[in-house]
Amino acid sequence: MKIGFVGLGNMGAGMAANLLAAGHEVTAFNRSPDKVAALAERGARAARTVAEACGGDLVITMLANDDAVEAVTFGSDGILTALGAGATHVSSSTISVALAERLTDAHGAAGQGFVAAPVFGRPDAAEAAKLFVVAAGEPAAVQALSPVFDAIGQRTFVVAEQPKAASLVKLSGNFLIASVIESLGEAMALVEKAGIDKQEYVELLTSTLFNAPVYKTYGGLMAREQFEPAGFAASLGLKDIRLVLAAGESLQVPLPVASLVRDRFLTLLANGGEHLDWSALGKLASLEAGVAKGNGLFGPAR
Amino acid sequence: MKIGFVGLGNMGAGMAANLLAAGHEVTAFNRSPDKVAALAERGARAARTVAEACGGDLVITMLANDDAVEAVTFGSDGILTALGAGATHVSSSTISVALAERLTDAHGAAGQGFVAAPVFGRPDAAEAAKLFVVAAGEPAAVQALSPVFDAIGQRTFVVAEQPKAASLVKLSGNFLIASVIESLGEAMALVEKAGIDKQEYVELLTSTLFNAPVYKTYGGLMAREQFEPAGFAASLGLKDIRLVLAAGESLQVPLPVASLVRDRFLTLLANGGEHLDWSALGKLASLEAGVAKGNGLFGPAR
Amino acid sequence: MKIGFVGLGNMGAGMAANLLAAGHEVTAFNRSPDKVAALAERGARAARTVAEACGGDLVITMLANDDAVEAVTFGSDGILTALGAGATHVSSSTISVALAERLTDAHGAAGQGFVAAPVFGRPDAAEAAKLFVVAAGEPAAVQALSPVFDAIGQRTFVVAEQPKAASLVKLSGNFLIASVIESLGEAMALVEKAGIDKQEYVELLTSTLFNAPVYKTYGGLMAREQFEPAGFAASLGLKDIRLVLAAGESLQVPLPVASLVRDRFLTLLANGGEHLDWSALGKLASLEAGVAKGNGLFGPAR
Amino acid sequence: MKIGFVGLGNMGAGMAANLLAAGHEVTAFNRSPDKVAALAERGARAARTVAEACGGDLVITMLANDDAVEAVTFGSDGILTALGAGATHVSSSTISVALAERLTDAHGAAGQGFVAAPVFGRPDAAEAAKLFVVAAGEPAAVQALSPVFDAIGQRTFVVAEQPKAASLVKLSGNFLIASVIESLGEAMALVEKAGIDKQEYVELLTSTLFNAPVYKTYGGLMAREQFEPAGFAASLGLKDIRLVLAAGESLQVPLPVASLVRDRFLTLLANGGEHLDWSALGKLASLEAGVAKGNGLFGPAR
Repeated sequence: MKIGFVGLGNMGAGMAANLLAAGHEVTAFNRSPDKVAALAERGARAARTVAEACGGDLVITMLANDDAVEAVTFGSDGILTALGAGATHVSSSTISVALAERLTDAHGAAGQGFVAAPVFGRPDAAEAAKLFVVAAGEPAAVQALSPVFDAIGQRTFVVAEQPKAASLVKLSGNFLIASVIESLGEAMALVEKAGIDKQEYVELLTSTLFNAPVYKTYGGLMAREQFEPAGFAASLGLKDIRLVLAAGESLQVPLPVASLVRDRFLTLLANGGEHLDWSALGKLASLEAGVAKGNGLFGPAR
Repeated sequence: MKIGFVGLGNMGAGMAANLLAAGHEVTAFNRSPDKVAALAERGARAARTVAEACGGDLVITMLANDDAVEAVTFGSDGILTALGAGATHVSSSTISVALAERLTDAHGAAGQGFVAAPVFGRPDAAEAAKLFVVAAGEPAAVQALSPVFDAIGQRTFVVAEQPKAASLVKLSGNFLIASVIESLGEAMALVEKAGIDKQEYVELLTSTLFNAPVYKTYGGLMAREQFEPAGFAASLGLKDIRLVLAAGESLQVPLPVASLVRDRFLTLLANGGEHLDWSALGKLASLEAGVAKGNGLFGPAR
Repeated sequence: MKIGFVGLGNMGAGMAANLLAAGHEVTAFNRSPDKVAALAERGARAARTVAEACGGDLVITMLANDDAVEAVTFGSDGILTALGAGATHVSSSTISVALAERLTDAHGAAGQGFVAAPVFGRPDAAEAAKLFVVAAGEPAAVQALSPVFDAIGQRTFVVAEQPKAASLVKLSGNFLIASVIESLGEAMALVEKAGIDKQEYVELLTSTLFNAPVYKTYGGLMAREQFEPAGFAASLGLKDIRLVLAAGESLQVPLPVASLVRDRFLTLLANGGEHLDWSALGKLASLEAGVAKGNGLFGPAR
Repeated sequence: MKIGFVGLGNMGAGMAANLLAAGHEVTAFNRSPDKVAALAERGARAARTVAEACGGDLVITMLANDDAVEAVTFGSDGILTALGAGATHVSSSTISVALAERLTDAHGAAGQGFVAAPVFGRPDAAEAAKLFVVAAGEPAAVQALSPVFDAIGQRTFVVAEQPKAASLVKLSGNFLIASVIESLGEAMALVEKAGIDKQEYVELLTSTLFNAPVYKTYGGLMAREQFEPAGFAASLGLKDIRLVLAAGESLQVPLPVASLVRDRFLTLLANGGEHLDWSALGKLASLEAGVAKGNGLFGPAR
């Protein structure tokens, strides 16, 4: 297929490379052009503008937040203007439910398709084509995208015909990950202060009831306190929790654990942690408990 | 080995049966004698008193809470009095850190051994000898118990030489399970109110990042709203959260998610849910969100 | 002074009447004109459009939320267009910090003044000219408004030269009121379930350490469960908590009690309480505790 | 009346002095005898043992916690043994609901009276005879104590015939104070980070809706960051929150704000704050927000 790809960050670069590897024709755009050049060496065509990436069957956006997706879509010479009738905008970014709704309406009015297809997985999974794709949209449009999803992920889940449902599911998944980070951080602070080794503790958990990628990935990062470089930055984590809380408010669903996690992210950011991996959230419990060395709130920790 | 077994409830019955199946000589005691009779048919000797179960190499207690363990241990003709010098009390109950410490001291003073060996797993795992054993105590004593742990579980983790460490790890694990129930309950209330099918949602989660027994077991129970009969009753869930909070207070470790879960359990119990499985905790979010039918807080939900 | 007044709701009607009573010349606009007619009988001139209310020295807006203030200010023939150079827009609505900033910039660019002057007090205080005014803006502009503030309130606090500071202080005050409602609701659920009379309990509190209007007003409403008619509706309470949390997020200040109160408001609204006074928030604790009759979460309360 | 007084700490010293000043005959006991000597100079008789303070019509205990009250009551030569039949034990300490119940039963069985009479007020109020007394017990016994309560307080509230009700009311009051400290701490962190002066902010609040002793006292301490010497230590604050949560658990009443405050106290204590006044709790919000200088969680605050 002829695919435009907008956004070659941590995640997008791997996804676009896998589309090329699967034989698709990819025209790529990125705000900073060096990333495009790197991909061009693997066979991509370089687009100098967003509009140049909109000449094919579909354009995929993989960007950091709502603002970026709005800018490339609704801006002058944006996707809405440049994309042909009958072509489809596939949004793989984690965006708000409200923006998913707005994109559905706008593309529909322009005779274009819109499919939300956010993904679960960190940069290494994007590079290895091991993402999980959560797709929602018109059944025929989603069906036609199978080769695309197969090229970037290990499995696709079609959750609904309304694109916004995929956004909600993706946001809820990120909330669940953040809740694992927070809970695990508390449990690790508790056992660590009692003298139990953190790494052995995580090994025990992830060999038993908590034998899942999310516990292994984040438990490992937290046990090693390996928060840099960020696979997914704390500032993005806060953004997603904000969006899941906004979705909850719109649907009148209280989410107390999400509220707690939001406050934690604010603490992390207010203390210089915005560039750290979001698993750094899990260290706040040990700081509060006075476990972490040299960082006592009222003087040196004991 | 000659093993006494005290407590043939949901969990203990399966554990004792597996000890018999592995060729151990088991003398069993239970407060209500019909459970003993059932086990006797499989080859156990029936003890009419706790003391009668204390004549062998070790006695295992698998009881509901601290009070029950204290009663059989410190009561007249209890384990402390009846157990021989050099024999070992193995506590598989989920007990407080404080009681683990008291038992360690008391048995030590009496020339007896004490090993804490709480287990992870629900009644079906107990029956299938698939428990995970978390053991702590004198290395030699723990080592000698290998055949016992092998008979009841699929894997044993030795976490420390102080028995209380095993209690803490077990309690922290139950806290993590409860935090999964709570977080998942919030996420399910959110997607359900948006019209997404709960069972498909759990299928998606547990096929991807959350591919772990804890999400499958509890996600399934919650999606099906199958809260009876209780594999682990809400009242016991509250007890364990109380104990983990007490351990946290003693170590000066704040545990905000545990605090939130505690309040949820109180709400569940105050509204008639003490006999339900603790996964019923996960339904409170949908009740608050007005998703659950006919249960609105201010009249019929819409 | 020649004053335009936009918004004759629960609060605005009393404020405008007091301006008339103090001898000011008031031209009033309201979306539903019957309120204007009532005020015209007391001497006000009736404006048929917002623009007609903008011919004097200043125009005061007293509206329900950001959207309403934005509509009358930035809409066609809105305040920004209609107000004379040198005249001042006084916003007494409780608005977001972000909107206060935007209004400051827009009016400044148009050569107009902007003063934020939100008020504390319920409709009875508005009627009795007993409001507390929290003002912020250019010192000279604020100074010139003294006669206006004196006519509607019992005391004025000038908090800063930046109008947004007054919004923040007002929002923080509403947060503190909501936190009193929540805390008091919890305490009342506790003592009520122990058999202590709620009204006597509030009498005790408000005669001692909690001898303040906020405890008397809300404690009284809660003890009598008098949630209708709403002096300040739960939906507006949620709006203000949302705004204070947004301000906190923008400043990177976690506000855990505000987060908790937000979730409570969502529960209240999801269960049909949006039209109730925001003090109805305080009843959720007794519902959770199973104190309130006939409203049990899992069937009839005991 | 002939009064024994046990416990001459921050609060008890002032109370006993006022009993002397009102003409009562006071025999005082304190663990460290220098406090007794100071009171003897004002006319008290010095008791060398608890029992020596039990020879009159009543004995008042004013001690730090349950353990201390249990020790002087149930210990050898304690109040239960030494007090005459028909005499009354008046407990002014803030004790658990469970201990109030146990004392009621034990003194009743011994033919003695028991009245719970905890007080609201800090050491300066104790010295000035301005305490508020919350009394519960047999009506005749409470009535007979009027002269005593009048000597130490400005007003007495009789809340129930069961002594434990007075404990519950007192604990709920301390919870409400702690919730004020926490909420105010959050609001102050918010406005302070926006550049508003904390002291002026507290002045505004306490001149308007929050015109109550609790806001003036604690708002003032927090604005001045005057946490030493402690009028009421953080460790005692945690104790009272623990007791109110225990009462809530016993009655099945969730108290989410109390849970939040408990976690805050643990953070404060884990970081060396146990000796500070409990109003230091209110500083945690500004530490989390990175407002407080030089104490950033992840390095120097900005």
